[in-house]
Amino acid sequence: MLSRNVTKFCATRRIISQRNLHVSAALLNKRVETDAFGEIEVDTTRYWGAQTQRSLQNFDIGQPTARLPPSLIKSFGILKKAAAIVNERYGTLKPEVAKAIQQAATEVSEGKLIDHFPLVVFQTGSGTQSNMNANEVISNRAIELLGGVMGSKKPVHPNDDVNKSQSSNDTFPTVMHIAAVTEISQSLLPELAALREALQAKSDEFANIVKIGRTHLQDATPLTLGQEFSGYVQQVTNGIARVESSLGTLRCLAQGGTAVGTGLNTKKGWDSDIASEVSNLTGLEFKAAPNKFEALAAHDAIVEASGALNTVAVSLFKIANDIRYLGSGPRCGYGELALPENEPGSSIMPGKVNPTQNEALTMVCTQVFGNHSTITFAGASGQFELNVFKPVMIYNLLQSISLLADGAKSFRIHCVEGIKANEDKINKLLHESLMLVTALNPYIGYDKASKVAKNAHKKGITLKESALELGVLTEEEFKKWVVPEDMIGPK
Amino acid sequence: MLSRNVTKFCATRRIISQRNLHVSAALLNKRVETDAFGEIEVDTTRYWGAQTQRSLQNFDIGQPTARLPPSLIKSFGILKKAAAIVNERYGTLKPEVAKAIQQAATEVSEGKLIDHFPLVVFQTGSGTQSNMNANEVISNRAIELLGGVMGSKKPVHPNDDVNKSQSSNDTFPTVMHIAAVTEISQSLLPELAALREALQAKSDEFANIVKIGRTHLQDATPLTLGQEFSGYVQQVTNGIARVESSLGTLRCLAQGGTAVGTGLNTKKGWDSDIASEVSNLTGLEFKAAPNKFEALAAHDAIVEASGALNTVAVSLFKIANDIRYLGSGPRCGYGELALPENEPGSSIMPGKVNPTQNEALTMVCTQVFGNHSTITFAGASGQFELNVFKPVMIYNLLQSISLLADGAKSFRIHCVEGIKANEDKINKLLHESLMLVTALNPYIGYDKASKVAKNAHKKGITLKESALELGVLTEEEFKKWVVPEDMIGPK
Amino acid sequence: MLSRNVTKFCATRRIISQRNLHVSAALLNKRVETDAFGEIEVDTTRYWGAQTQRSLQNFDIGQPTARLPPSLIKSFGILKKAAAIVNERYGTLKPEVAKAIQQAATEVSEGKLIDHFPLVVFQTGSGTQSNMNANEVISNRAIELLGGVMGSKKPVHPNDDVNKSQSSNDTFPTVMHIAAVTEISQSLLPELAALREALQAKSDEFANIVKIGRTHLQDATPLTLGQEFSGYVQQVTNGIARVESSLGTLRCLAQGGTAVGTGLNTKKGWDSDIASEVSNLTGLEFKAAPNKFEALAAHDAIVEASGALNTVAVSLFKIANDIRYLGSGPRCGYGELALPENEPGSSIMPGKVNPTQNEALTMVCTQVFGNHSTITFAGASGQFELNVFKPVMIYNLLQSISLLADGAKSFRIHCVEGIKANEDKINKLLHESLMLVTALNPYIGYDKASKVAKNAHKKGITLKESALELGVLTEEEFKKWVVPEDMIGPK
Amino acid sequence: MLSRNVTKFCATRRIISQRNLHVSAALLNKRVETDAFGEIEVDTTRYWGAQTQRSLQNFDIGQPTARLPPSLIKSFGILKKAAAIVNERYGTLKPEVAKAIQQAATEVSEGKLIDHFPLVVFQTGSGTQSNMNANEVISNRAIELLGGVMGSKKPVHPNDDVNKSQSSNDTFPTVMHIAAVTEISQSLLPELAALREALQAKSDEFANIVKIGRTHLQDATPLTLGQEFSGYVQQVTNGIARVESSLGTLRCLAQGGTAVGTGLNTKKGWDSDIASEVSNLTGLEFKAAPNKFEALAAHDAIVEASGALNTVAVSLFKIANDIRYLGSGPRCGYGELALPENEPGSSIMPGKVNPTQNEALTMVCTQVFGNHSTITFAGASGQFELNVFKPVMIYNLLQSISLLADGAKSFRIHCVEGIKANEDKINKLLHESLMLVTALNPYIGYDKASKVAKNAHKKGITLKESALELGVLTEEEFKKWVVPEDMIGPK
Repeated sequence: MLSRNVTKFCATRRIISQRNLHVSAALLNKRVETDAFGEIEVDTTRYWGAQTQRSLQNFDIGQPTARLPPSLIKSFGILKKAAAIVNERYGTLKPEVAKAIQQAATEVSEGKLIDHFPLVVFQTGSGTQSNMNANEVISNRAIELLGGVMGSKKPVHPNDDVNKSQSSNDTFPTVMHIAAVTEISQSLLPELAALREALQAKSDEFANIVKIGRTHLQDATPLTLGQEFSGYVQQVTNGIARVESSLGTLRCLAQGGTAVGTGLNTKKGWDSDIASEVSNLTGLEFKAAPNKFEALAAHDAIVEASGALNTVAVSLFKIANDIRYLGSGPRCGYGELALPENEPGSSIMPGKVNPTQNEALTMVCTQVFGNHSTITFAGASGQFELNVFKPVMIYNLLQSISLLADGAKSFRIHCVEGIKANEDKINKLLHESLMLVTALNPYIGYDKASKVAKNAHKKGITLKESALELGVLTEEEFKKWVVPEDMIGPK
Repeated sequence: MLSRNVTKFCATRRIISQRNLHVSAALLNKRVETDAFGEIEVDTTRYWGAQTQRSLQNFDIGQPTARLPPSLIKSFGILKKAAAIVNERYGTLKPEVAKAIQQAATEVSEGKLIDHFPLVVFQTGSGTQSNMNANEVISNRAIELLGGVMGSKKPVHPNDDVNKSQSSNDTFPTVMHIAAVTEISQSLLPELAALREALQAKSDEFANIVKIGRTHLQDATPLTLGQEFSGYVQQVTNGIARVESSLGTLRCLAQGGTAVGTGLNTKKGWDSDIASEVSNLTGLEFKAAPNKFEALAAHDAIVEASGALNTVAVSLFKIANDIRYLGSGPRCGYGELALPENEPGSSIMPGKVNPTQNEALTMVCTQVFGNHSTITFAGASGQFELNVFKPVMIYNLLQSISLLADGAKSFRIHCVEGIKANEDKINKLLHESLMLVTALNPYIGYDKASKVAKNAHKKGITLKESALELGVLTEEEFKKWVVPEDMIGPK
Repeated sequence: MLSRNVTKFCATRRIISQRNLHVSAALLNKRVETDAFGEIEVDTTRYWGAQTQRSLQNFDIGQPTARLPPSLIKSFGILKKAAAIVNERYGTLKPEVAKAIQQAATEVSEGKLIDHFPLVVFQTGSGTQSNMNANEVISNRAIELLGGVMGSKKPVHPNDDVNKSQSSNDTFPTVMHIAAVTEISQSLLPELAALREALQAKSDEFANIVKIGRTHLQDATPLTLGQEFSGYVQQVTNGIARVESSLGTLRCLAQGGTAVGTGLNTKKGWDSDIASEVSNLTGLEFKAAPNKFEALAAHDAIVEASGALNTVAVSLFKIANDIRYLGSGPRCGYGELALPENEPGSSIMPGKVNPTQNEALTMVCTQVFGNHSTITFAGASGQFELNVFKPVMIYNLLQSISLLADGAKSFRIHCVEGIKANEDKINKLLHESLMLVTALNPYIGYDKASKVAKNAHKKGITLKESALELGVLTEEEFKKWVVPEDMIGPK
Repeated sequence: MLSRNVTKFCATRRIISQRNLHVSAALLNKRVETDAFGEIEVDTTRYWGAQTQRSLQNFDIGQPTARLPPSLIKSFGILKKAAAIVNERYGTLKPEVAKAIQQAATEVSEGKLIDHFPLVVFQTGSGTQSNMNANEVISNRAIELLGGVMGSKKPVHPNDDVNKSQSSNDTFPTVMHIAAVTEISQSLLPELAALREALQAKSDEFANIVKIGRTHLQDATPLTLGQEFSGYVQQVTNGIARVESSLGTLRCLAQGGTAVGTGLNTKKGWDSDIASEVSNLTGLEFKAAPNKFEALAAHDAIVEASGALNTVAVSLFKIANDIRYLGSGPRCGYGELALPENEPGSSIMPGKVNPTQNEALTMVCTQVFGNHSTITFAGASGQFELNVFKPVMIYNLLQSISLLADGAKSFRIHCVEGIKANEDKINKLLHESLMLVTALNPYIGYDKASKVAKNAHKKGITLKESALELGVLTEEEFKKWVVPEDMIGPK
């Protein structure tokens, strides 16, 4: 009984305080917005509404750097526009409302309203608050376009109109996929292709430079510098294929699953109509996910894509690492390559130039490895009908995509394209190596060849000297059999 | 000068000590084997030679559990047999030597000589010692077959004959791929397919059981238990496709690259002849790697495959976790599923039965996640012409494959196939839920529907009672609009 | 010969183009700055110099979100001020120069010049460019204070004065440690302590609420809700100790190692004088690293600290996960706890409230897990005298620190402090459970007790009914022996 | 009604089939054992009972390599002995039963009964089955000692006697901690200390060898080889402290928590009496965990310890990697160190010697990194009163401990202790380097010094030639100022 009265008293007090809110809000350049929890003040310069404002206040975690990235926000614009188009076609939205939503959504998709999306990754795990942020911004902007009063939800309601036939549970995974496919297609893949071309050009340029090979870091049999780079080309070629392969499931959109995957409150065909409209708007291929329960409750497609990026990072780490070691020196390292000098290298050692692009790229790779761990853990932790690690998964995936794209580009322009071969050093090392002895295996057998090499190593003499000293062949035979240029391929 | 004399002295002393070695070895059931480092004793009951023995002594790390797994050893048998067949055809091995090698290699491939492969993962990073282990065992066994003296290297030399046209640097990655493709094809994929079928059968069985959905762990709109399981089916279906996709680069064999990828000491065509012969022997598709430099220096294909397994583990973790929560209780949990009772669950709580298969499977998944980290790190750490983390990469990959296969099988047989639905509990929960209110959105709007649900929650009454109390609809309307069975799909 | 002429030609052209640069720069509100690579234009509104500008252009990776965080920049201010103070004391800097540097550095340490630090993580791996950014900004600001011409390097030279007796190789790891210790001490540890108190308060509040325990998710013997929360308190208590323990090596500063750890170009005592001055300025304990070679070449202290954060994240993940499951429902879950309602939970399901703080915190934890992987990989990849993954290591560590601090705070305020126990539900579940049977072990033995429980489970009857039916005890005995309140501790 | 009859029918059939079981079992050298699930056959040569046998059949995952390791099994022996001693003292076990249990448990603790512990990691996540394995083996062996009939559970019952006052939920985490502390104390820490000594000896031996430093892989200012090794010594010194620090919480035993942490069915003081007895038996310090709820539900102590091992692995990776690069060559690498030659390095390249110990150790490190990921994931995934990832956590921790111990030992004996400095090569590189120019900073300033170095680099001349050519100093000044031996410390 008491508690009822208390409730009533509080309710009354809230009404009074809410009235005051309206008054004071106007004075402070604030607008009053409402949601199921009541009223809340929002800065009048912002389009967002009550739920966005609440999230801002309740999730002060990692601001401002941990905000959801622009590519994801833009994807919300695309999706909301597509939904309004399909709803208009279905007759489930009035044409003028639909048109206004489409225009507002277009502005979101073009990044014009990015300052109205202030929420961080570390909010609700379904991304509901960011979906509502999109609904609220688009509804208020559409209201503005139609001459209404912002915050009134009329004539464009954030839930009933902008979010019509949708749920955060299907919109957020849908924009995750739209953003991932877009960024991979338009940013990462082109940069990987450009890097591959740059490496291929170097492989061609270095095709005739015979050098010593190294296995276990120890001198081994020769190959050409072009062959060495051809391995890098193959790695990037495979990497492109891996990333492309992961697009398969990313192209499948969750839209149409609504709250739990059943598609409650949608019509049959809605899912594929949306996918088709998103394809139109983006110029990229999308289709409805074959099973919406999986599409909401699991984000294995994100984990798979991250796995592909992880493999690409493994490749780039190896390539960048090799190149910096081959360029180590200038006088006390391997010194086979000269890397471009882009900036002073040391604040204390004058004249020092460092393989900084390789360092940046390998750091990018370690970031991608860690992001993959985050995505793996988060991907495995979904529960029942919903995975609630959506924002952190897409945040890490999009970061991996953009860092790899930026890193590959920077590495290509500021390093790979400017690499030069130090032919003198390469040639000198080649002829000092003992592992040319391998060419003798077919003639004198492994055991005798081994003795020749070991004898040369111990005495600090050349292979030829050692072979002659041990009497295993003649000088003519040595000249005929030990020819580095003949050792770079099968017979 | 002094050092020369010292060298000479030492050499003399070694000869003497080696003579003694022969005498004492015979007395102790030891055989003397030799390599470039000299003589060493080997137990006469073992086929292995000097280099294996040296590795045993120099790498006492993790014995015996960290030995390379049988599937890898068997793959060595397949490869060495294939090499002997091709070498015989090329005329580079005498027929009788080739035949003896083939017979010995067949025994290795059948697992008959597994006790003669004692080396651990943590040896040289190229796997050279295991390649030599294979060469030595096969040569000694072939010598035995031909009536020769073990350790004499005649008439079958481990390097010159068994390893002919090969290097550890191409054989080891080749057997890595043979073992991985074999285990994935013959063990993992069939088990994943069987698990998918079992889940599909449950999805069918539960097709008409309407239950409450859960998002954010909170009550949500309904779906059928069959739909819930269909999400799991989709996850496993996708997982199979992911693993199959990773077979692409795994089917490419490094053989023919020899020491650094150039194919030195091989003939043109050797690589594809070997791949073709391995295909014949295994009944599985293999081909020569298009770029041998990449195939020796990087194991991105292993990283990629591990990424696919990682995604499968993410899926299985989610599935197993959901099922154990749905089966939690018997009286104080969700209790919607009854899992098979396979064993007593507690040493102190009588009558307790636990979701032990789910626990085993989720533990398997965490092992796969960790193995993937190991493989990622190791895969990124190759240098120049060789990645020297080969054994640890394949060890972890093969463990992930076999644990997932065993785990999926055990989970299917001892859990999934015996799952029963507790229909009474499911039905009871369904009708208590407040989220059926979502069905009212199209009729009374989100805001009013929200009030109905909140009012019911606060007062502990049913949705209908709340709706009527708030006067937002009639009893007839409620009955017509709120029908769980109508909420499990689009209109 | 030709190349010499070309060099000369280019040099001439550069001079001409540089002259033009001066002219055009003035027109475009640009200032010309110089370094060992020549001249480059900088926006006149910025204090930075040539090397910062070059880095901006050469490392367009992840801008702007991947910039080094403010806490690191501020630490540069502290260090540079300390260095100027000690250099002034040593007489190695003129007093007026030293004073101007100190004032400029103070502004940096207060975050006033944050917009003048635009560089990203993915730059040179030594952080040289950020060290030079600090040197350049401080020198130009000091020049400004002294009435000089920015970019003239007079009377305050970025290298010779601001960086005096320093190298990027020792300053960057020094600021890494200053920032980490500061953020841990002033942000993370207080928040963990506050969270512990909030959990302790709940543990006290719930001390007398007896509830069913759950092991393997299955009903188990009872405990109090207060005891359950006491486990969380212990986890956080241990976590605080773990983080504090990791401060040990973090308090050791690399300063004084200069380029390679030898301390070239410094005086004896410089290292501890700097550490002491940094302690003065921050009010936190610091000391000179005992071995500077380790302090430059390895960042094991960062890996160790990240390991401590990783363990804290493991704890928080478990706590947040438990609490959301215990709060699941409201009608179809465990429902033992009522979590605060902070915002609407669903854009489609009216009235839904979700455990969003738990979701945010568990997402934070997965981010910390991934960051730890990144840090581990980067920490292992140092080479010779320098680890060149410094920026990515400290970026991830500082992100982990701040996300854990923010996440713990948000979780405490918006979740823990408002948790309420649903005593009715707790009590109902407790008395339905079968595992109270465990209390009978000492009286009737495990085997019989097991039969009682299984019989009750099969028949859907109570424990007492089952026990009486099986005739293993009397009703009085049951009442005396099976008392949940007696089962919550040893006898 | 029908289902009741079916139940009855099945029950009858089971009785008949169980009778047959007794008959057939005897014929097949099988013994019949029983548990709450009924009868089951066990091989007469084995001491284990019904629950072990059931686990063997239900969890065929990763056999035999994934069995729980001997150190864990031995720890069960220690704990069960301690429990029997305390129970005897309390009078809760009859003296003859207690004595027999103690004798049997002693045999387990000595590893004599290891073949009777066949269960794998991937069983129930509480380790209940392994705890029952211990209870069953000890009870049957004790029965045997007392002349009873195995399987009769008389006069020694596995649950009521061997497991008295215990639960799997507290015994398994207790043996986890006993095994971890024992292996760390007796195996890992001594090996790390020995490695530190070996590195220290090398640091001393190389104290006067001045060499070029390398930062960013590029030539830098000089240091001594002894200083370089002193960094490694510091890393290992810190590593030892980190591991020791992690022993703090590992020494806390869960024993006394029983099923859910409350200590139901124990007496007050039991927990510390057990800890004290375990300390007696092992000679190592243990104490009762201050909070048993935490000790059962979370294994943060294992995560913390794994974090310490992870940091040690990071250190060892760096050390082993540096040393192999410094030893790269013999003619085309850095070549500053000569590593011991332990075995032939290549099956195709005669005379090749590789840094195989470094490879083995770095592979060990990658395994530890992955194990840490597994442990982190598993540690975060506990639920309510119990973490059910116990076996996989301790399996990975114990593997990390033993691999690091074995790896450190092997690396020390077969690599570190035999490292020699190639002084000629070191000296040659030192004097070719351009970075000695850094010594000129205090005399001619950074900018001029930079020009000297760049001029020398471009023209391929020495520093002195360049300095004189540019007229920045005299020959005498150069000789006085540029002295590598003066550059290895502060002034």
